[in-house]
Amino acid sequence: MKKIVVLGSTGSIGVSTLQIVEEFPEAYRIVALTAGTNLDLLCTQAKTFHPAVVAVINSQDAKIVRERLSGLNIEVCCGVEGMIQCATLDQADMVVAAVVGAAGLVPTMAAVQAGKDVALANKETLVMAGGLIMAAARQQGVKLLPVDSEHSAIFQALAGHHHGDIRRLILTASGGPFREWPAAKFNHISPADALAHPNWSMGKKITIDSATLMNKGLEVIEAHWLFDVAATMIDVHIHPESIVHSMVEYVDGSVVAQLGVPDMKTPISYALSWPQRLPLNQPGLDLCQLGSLTFSAPDLQRFPCLTLAYQALESGGTLPAVMNAANEVAVAAFLNAQIPFTGIPELIERVMACHTSEAVTTVERVLQADRWARVRAREFIAGGLI
Amino acid sequence: MKKIVVLGSTGSIGVSTLQIVEEFPEAYRIVALTAGTNLDLLCTQAKTFHPAVVAVINSQDAKIVRERLSGLNIEVCCGVEGMIQCATLDQADMVVAAVVGAAGLVPTMAAVQAGKDVALANKETLVMAGGLIMAAARQQGVKLLPVDSEHSAIFQALAGHHHGDIRRLILTASGGPFREWPAAKFNHISPADALAHPNWSMGKKITIDSATLMNKGLEVIEAHWLFDVAATMIDVHIHPESIVHSMVEYVDGSVVAQLGVPDMKTPISYALSWPQRLPLNQPGLDLCQLGSLTFSAPDLQRFPCLTLAYQALESGGTLPAVMNAANEVAVAAFLNAQIPFTGIPELIERVMACHTSEAVTTVERVLQADRWARVRAREFIAGGLI
Repeated sequence: MKKIVVLGSTGSIGVSTLQIVEEFPEAYRIVALTAGTNLDLLCTQAKTFHPAVVAVINSQDAKIVRERLSGLNIEVCCGVEGMIQCATLDQADMVVAAVVGAAGLVPTMAAVQAGKDVALANKETLVMAGGLIMAAARQQGVKLLPVDSEHSAIFQALAGHHHGDIRRLILTASGGPFREWPAAKFNHISPADALAHPNWSMGKKITIDSATLMNKGLEVIEAHWLFDVAATMIDVHIHPESIVHSMVEYVDGSVVAQLGVPDMKTPISYALSWPQRLPLNQPGLDLCQLGSLTFSAPDLQRFPCLTLAYQALESGGTLPAVMNAANEVAVAAFLNAQIPFTGIPELIERVMACHTSEAVTTVERVLQADRWARVRAREFIAGGLI
Repeated sequence: MKKIVVLGSTGSIGVSTLQIVEEFPEAYRIVALTAGTNLDLLCTQAKTFHPAVVAVINSQDAKIVRERLSGLNIEVCCGVEGMIQCATLDQADMVVAAVVGAAGLVPTMAAVQAGKDVALANKETLVMAGGLIMAAARQQGVKLLPVDSEHSAIFQALAGHHHGDIRRLILTASGGPFREWPAAKFNHISPADALAHPNWSMGKKITIDSATLMNKGLEVIEAHWLFDVAATMIDVHIHPESIVHSMVEYVDGSVVAQLGVPDMKTPISYALSWPQRLPLNQPGLDLCQLGSLTFSAPDLQRFPCLTLAYQALESGGTLPAVMNAANEVAVAAFLNAQIPFTGIPELIERVMACHTSEAVTTVERVLQADRWARVRAREFIAGGLI
């Protein structure tokens, strides 16, 4: 019986995680849940799974949740402290880090430092502070199990093979809804256009990141840290069908790939059950029915975010955190119709250009760079410079 | 320094194996070579690699070879005894079993019984006597490393994963040159048509087997023995590009595949170097340039050999050996223009239908069934019954 904490239980990864736990009640038990603003769903989840603790963002929400869960013997806490309390819960064996955005860093680091295995769905943790997290994980003997379908694929394609034999990692990307749009139309892309992802059902932030390819850029950085592979050894292929989730090429020319229908349940369940697998009640992959899988190189002219991510990774230090923060502000501004779609990479590039990168020595230093980048990005937007 | 015996050194697998040994002289040394009738190539190879022993089929050829290699301190022997002497050589660490056809069984079994690891390219060994070979390998603690690209792919896709988590194996097949030919034209297929394989350069026998899909049938049986997976859990997909070499589907819906350009050097080198890999000087896979990979179900109406192989595997006993022997006779008869292309499955089916299958208890019992099938098949041909 593995005891599990879900940070971000009301998001799409959190919900899928709880569905798997419900399917395999003998294997898993939920001991803590945290959520942002979706109190209704959090309370429903708490009534179903009876965790020891739940956490929400502010004390007002905590009061509401406490009333709704009264008599169930569930502790309700709030704020970053509440998240950390859940992430480090004594009885927990594994923490599913499914909070979206930079907010995931502090509780994820707390979980690692407390010696909890982490199923990592929060990209920003590694993008911002990959060096610190990996060092802490090594020190604590903690396993970091990727939940992203791409990293789960690479993790599966590396199993049983030698790290020294890797020639390159190949991350696949659906290419998003604008894969075939001409550059001239990019300025007229609306939030509604961008939210229509062809293959995956995800939160808004990640859907926009998929449309700009920044999602893939963040994944390149994440792959660098998770698998200890240099940026020059990580490639991206556009693969619109999202069936090949990623690949590893070895020195003898062999490529090992992981494939599957696009459903987050498979990578989530692999992170929960590794090194075993769960017999998921899912439709299998039918390649004969699909007929064909296609691949092409990404167009860096129309999707400059991918180039920015490689630049940030190669420069290192606080620059990836700055890029990530500027991207979060840019995506929010695009969704609020404050900047055009092409303004997203433009804003990120501007913020990156005026940042002096420093070594990442502490989480506090990273968070400082993150705050600086958000202020700077908002200034650019407010000044009408994008 | 791994000391290697190559059984069948003048065939395409043997030649590729020697190319790899030549590329990595610090890692491998050739200690014995055996060949059929290509004495010129055998002597050239012997002069290059200086094995301790070489073996040929008959004493007359042995005399010729002995003269040509005089003064080189290379022992020349002949016949089945000569092959066995090479396969069991004291100093050998690994035997590459690359003889084509049923003739590979006895020396391969001898290698296993002598405790030599075997890189297995001879399909017939497992098709005819899979149960005996696997039992002997277990008893001797011998590793059987697949050289067929499909089985090498499955071997790589199983590494690091749990056998109990397998849902099915998916063997890919190019579909051969007649993949898109209408059934009506099958009776007019000439040996020249059938020898034009689209992707792989191989010997005649295997090229015809590719055209009938019997090659894939033999591989299904081989996969059953190598990976201990039931016939009902082994599927075949037609994949004309021959890039995905095979796949394993797991219980969680994950599919792990091995891909690469169609070149036997990769699987051969993996068998030689496993669990490490050799840095082969080969062009990498460029999926973006390829553009697309396609898949379809095999057409069992036009390619009945595949169904015959599944039937032989499910019946078990001596039936797979009988099927294999009948196929060898049928392919030779087709190449000699004695029977039409459609006569190949017809002849195999007839021979199988009049065989009473028995348990495979000894190699001699299998060879007896093999001989019986050959006689019977030749009778059908001589009688003009095909």
